[in-house]
Amino acid sequence: MNGLHLIADLHDCRCQPSFLLDAIRLEAFCVDACTRHGLTVVGRLFHAFRDATGEPAGVTGTVVLAESHLAVHTWPEIGSVTLDVYVCNFSGDNSRRAHTLFAEIVAAFAPARLEKQEVARGHLGLLQGA
Amino acid sequence: MNGLHLIADLHDCRCQPSFLLDAIRLEAFCVDACTRHGLTVVGRLFHAFRDATGEPAGVTGTVVLAESHLAVHTWPEIGSVTLDVYVCNFSGDNSRRAHTLFAEIVAAFAPARLEKQEVARGHLGLLQGA
Repeated sequence: MNGLHLIADLHDCRCQPSFLLDAIRLEAFCVDACTRHGLTVVGRLFHAFRDATGEPAGVTGTVVLAESHLAVHTWPEIGSVTLDVYVCNFSGDNSRRAHTLFAEIVAAFAPARLEKQEVARGHLGLLQGA
Repeated sequence: MNGLHLIADLHDCRCQPSFLLDAIRLEAFCVDACTRHGLTVVGRLFHAFRDATGEPAGVTGTVVLAESHLAVHTWPEIGSVTLDVYVCNFSGDNSRRAHTLFAEIVAAFAPARLEKQEVARGHLGLLQGA
């Protein structure tokens, strides 16, 4: 169950504003990126929020992978995005795939500022030979 | 976009073994727990894996929330679970809800060992007034 979880908060995204609002486009991009980076998509669920006037107001979505998950939430009103890429190593060391997938998605949002953390998942189990 | 992301790896889970295998039951439990803790479910997606002989081999699932997401992956072969509860504070400070939801789900798996991390999401944006 050990794996790599990449966590990022993206600020001042310089992508097209519509990229933070269009759930269908964002879903297609994320699913395609996961597949191209060699991960196995077992499901996807994207939801478009609307504000009080009925206008698009952000997207929340997840791609469920055989190797764990990708999750993204957009905050178009402040040009920000939160991103999670968690890829386990059940079928081999997928760390490189996690990093390259993560980098491609971050690049698509083009943030001026980025906060990033890496969390080793299942580490205790790994150390103890589980 | 600031919020609290609780991350845990659960080991040696002493719950019924079937709880790590039954996607329908796990989905119902997670969705019900999110709702009871005052969060807004906008979607859910749970997938049951099967091994080479067709037997149940773990569950991966996510509950997409208006306040971000819950994600869970089970590893029945080693009695382990990875859990993410990420709850943003768009509608108010939801940190208490995140903690109580997280505690209930952990308790249901009854792990003998737990690794936990708390990640403050969107912190830079918060500090800078975004």
